[in-house]
Amino acid sequence: MMITTRKATLQDLPAVHDLVRELAVYEHAETELTASVEDYRRDFEAGIFNVILAEDAGQIVGIALYHFAYSTWKGRMMYLEDFVVTDSRRGQGIGRILFDAFLEECRVQECRVVKWQVLDWNEPALNFYKKYDAAIETNWWNGKIYTMIK
Amino acid sequence: MMITTRKATLQDLPAVHDLVRELAVYEHAETELTASVEDYRRDFEAGIFNVILAEDAGQIVGIALYHFAYSTWKGRMMYLEDFVVTDSRRGQGIGRILFDAFLEECRVQECRVVKWQVLDWNEPALNFYKKYDAAIETNWWNGKIYTMIK
Repeated sequence: MMITTRKATLQDLPAVHDLVRELAVYEHAETELTASVEDYRRDFEAGIFNVILAEDAGQIVGIALYHFAYSTWKGRMMYLEDFVVTDSRRGQGIGRILFDAFLEECRVQECRVVKWQVLDWNEPALNFYKKYDAAIETNWWNGKIYTMIK
Repeated sequence: MMITTRKATLQDLPAVHDLVRELAVYEHAETELTASVEDYRRDFEAGIFNVILAEDAGQIVGIALYHFAYSTWKGRMMYLEDFVVTDSRRGQGIGRILFDAFLEECRVQECRVVKWQVLDWNEPALNFYKKYDAAIETNWWNGKIYTMIK
């Protein structure tokens, strides 16, 4: 096994979408995934998000999908929206390699904070983040409105 | 009272910073605010965030600070990072005018989801969002790493 990381290009987006679906299934929410590969292409080209891929012999085995965000308290921030290692390749250290590559990109982009979210029942993920001395905040709730397009 | 809204320019950022400080005080966290007006200028010019202002006779009385985000499930998203009406002007409907202007901007930008966060003890804010039929999620925790700059 020789895991390498690189930034995704437009051509990688179908494989990215496949891994997003895999995580949606793991989170018991497959029907919630309504964005298409075509949506991904449009928004990737608009510069709204980026992806770092983990590959083993040219096969994509993990993704970290992220975008700039902003902390009015701390300044420039990076937000990790989705972070997936394909099910058959978990427990092999690939997540660590991918997360380290993501943190390095955050440093290059001069971010002062990295932020993501984790489901409160996801013990394996919470244990993973503990290794990074991450702060876990349990007192913020998410508000969402889905009715934008009329 | 005649409240108007408009997008902020570079020149408005000191006033924006003042209102962010006011909210930090309200949330018992003034010492957490370490980003400077100069940081705001740099990151605003880099296009990382935007601000809609509410004004009364040329005086800034509220801000909605936001940026693009991405939902891998739904697609293009807007994230409302800070939303403040100055203390002396609360209860006058300014928040509603500002939030409506923000939602209109989200529609113009073709976002499918609007997201923000609210502290679990902030009853007035929770009541405000209920009027918009917002979904409130209580099962996601925030992860953060603050050690980016070495």
